[in-house]
Amino acid sequence: MVIFDEELAALKEKILKMGLLVDAAVRDSIKSLVERDSGLAREVIRRDREINACDVGIDEEGVRLIALRQPKAHDLRFLITAMKITTDLERMGDLAEDIAERAIELNEEPPLKPYIDIPRMAGIARGMLVDVLDAFIRKDAAAAYDVIKRDDEVDGLTVQIFNELLFFMIQDPRATSRAVKITYLSKYLERIADHATNIAEMVVYMVEGKMIKHMKP
Amino acid sequence: MVIFDEELAALKEKILKMGLLVDAAVRDSIKSLVERDSGLAREVIRRDREINACDVGIDEEGVRLIALRQPKAHDLRFLITAMKITTDLERMGDLAEDIAERAIELNEEPPLKPYIDIPRMAGIARGMLVDVLDAFIRKDAAAAYDVIKRDDEVDGLTVQIFNELLFFMIQDPRATSRAVKITYLSKYLERIADHATNIAEMVVYMVEGKMIKHMKP
Repeated sequence: MVIFDEELAALKEKILKMGLLVDAAVRDSIKSLVERDSGLAREVIRRDREINACDVGIDEEGVRLIALRQPKAHDLRFLITAMKITTDLERMGDLAEDIAERAIELNEEPPLKPYIDIPRMAGIARGMLVDVLDAFIRKDAAAAYDVIKRDDEVDGLTVQIFNELLFFMIQDPRATSRAVKITYLSKYLERIADHATNIAEMVVYMVEGKMIKHMKP
Repeated sequence: MVIFDEELAALKEKILKMGLLVDAAVRDSIKSLVERDSGLAREVIRRDREINACDVGIDEEGVRLIALRQPKAHDLRFLITAMKITTDLERMGDLAEDIAERAIELNEEPPLKPYIDIPRMAGIARGMLVDVLDAFIRKDAAAAYDVIKRDDEVDGLTVQIFNELLFFMIQDPRATSRAVKITYLSKYLERIADHATNIAEMVVYMVEGKMIKHMKP
């Protein structure tokens, strides 16, 4: 079925495109924070519609292909994985929007301290996203396992950021509102990394046919 | 296909069972907080395995039925919805686990103030979960729309809780660590309600065949 192969390739292309839009949203939401550029933050919020449109399009195409082509084993797993991945990507887009909203609020107040760990965390999360998309496209389970491993680093940074900000809050109650918002930023990034991990687990499922998502101790 | 109908009914039953385990996890995680019962919190954490086992079972059964029965339109949408719902339920279970973990930490410190809004929020979120499961089982789009409407109430409470706790933190820096953890609790509950909303949107899709998930302004 040459046509079906082309349809699958086109769907893959759409998921990759959606993933790159999400990556750009995360990148720009962090940039809007670091550079105190609320105009850019508002652009991230506006652009979320494009991501949502991709999500609906991929879902509908997935259902259509399953109904029409009645795929078996391998292709069926690919299509179901694609439709699950799109849910995670869409929520990552929402989280970039959340970051942009907090950035706008934080930009209206004096800076608490230079942002160092937050951009670092964002860098790791974005690396996980780009690598897991690549693993999906290339059907590379080993690369997906590598993404899963990096999630611990992000979790460690979340704890570190929380403790550091707690110190700020206790020293200066006027810093509290801002500091709490920055802990939220780290939580959003932690969840973006979690979604990348979910996708990685689904890629393993797609390639190896086994569910590993609940195997962490 | 009488056998297929029975298989679908059995799958529905499994999803309902999983949903009720999640509801019990949310209920007990909040109880462990309010009654300062860390033993119960640890039980919630232990029981998350059962929820995860449901998730894997439902996913595998969904893929098997699509491959074997090659369902069309209505049944196909039902199966795909079931497999997406299970992802949301599993994450709600993880959030109940997060609540239980924070409860254990908070139970080790003196109480900041009686918990009033957190149990109230949990009550709304649990009501949304139970009602959306019912809407799914009965294929009732109107009931699903009703669940979606209640999400705003939860979001409003999150903001209210944040502002109240900010006041505590500013007044007494020694309260900061505990207060921040309580804002996290409200965030977890907000996300549980978000997942119920996601499920409701999928129920509408299943019944009406249209995607409404990105129609909010």
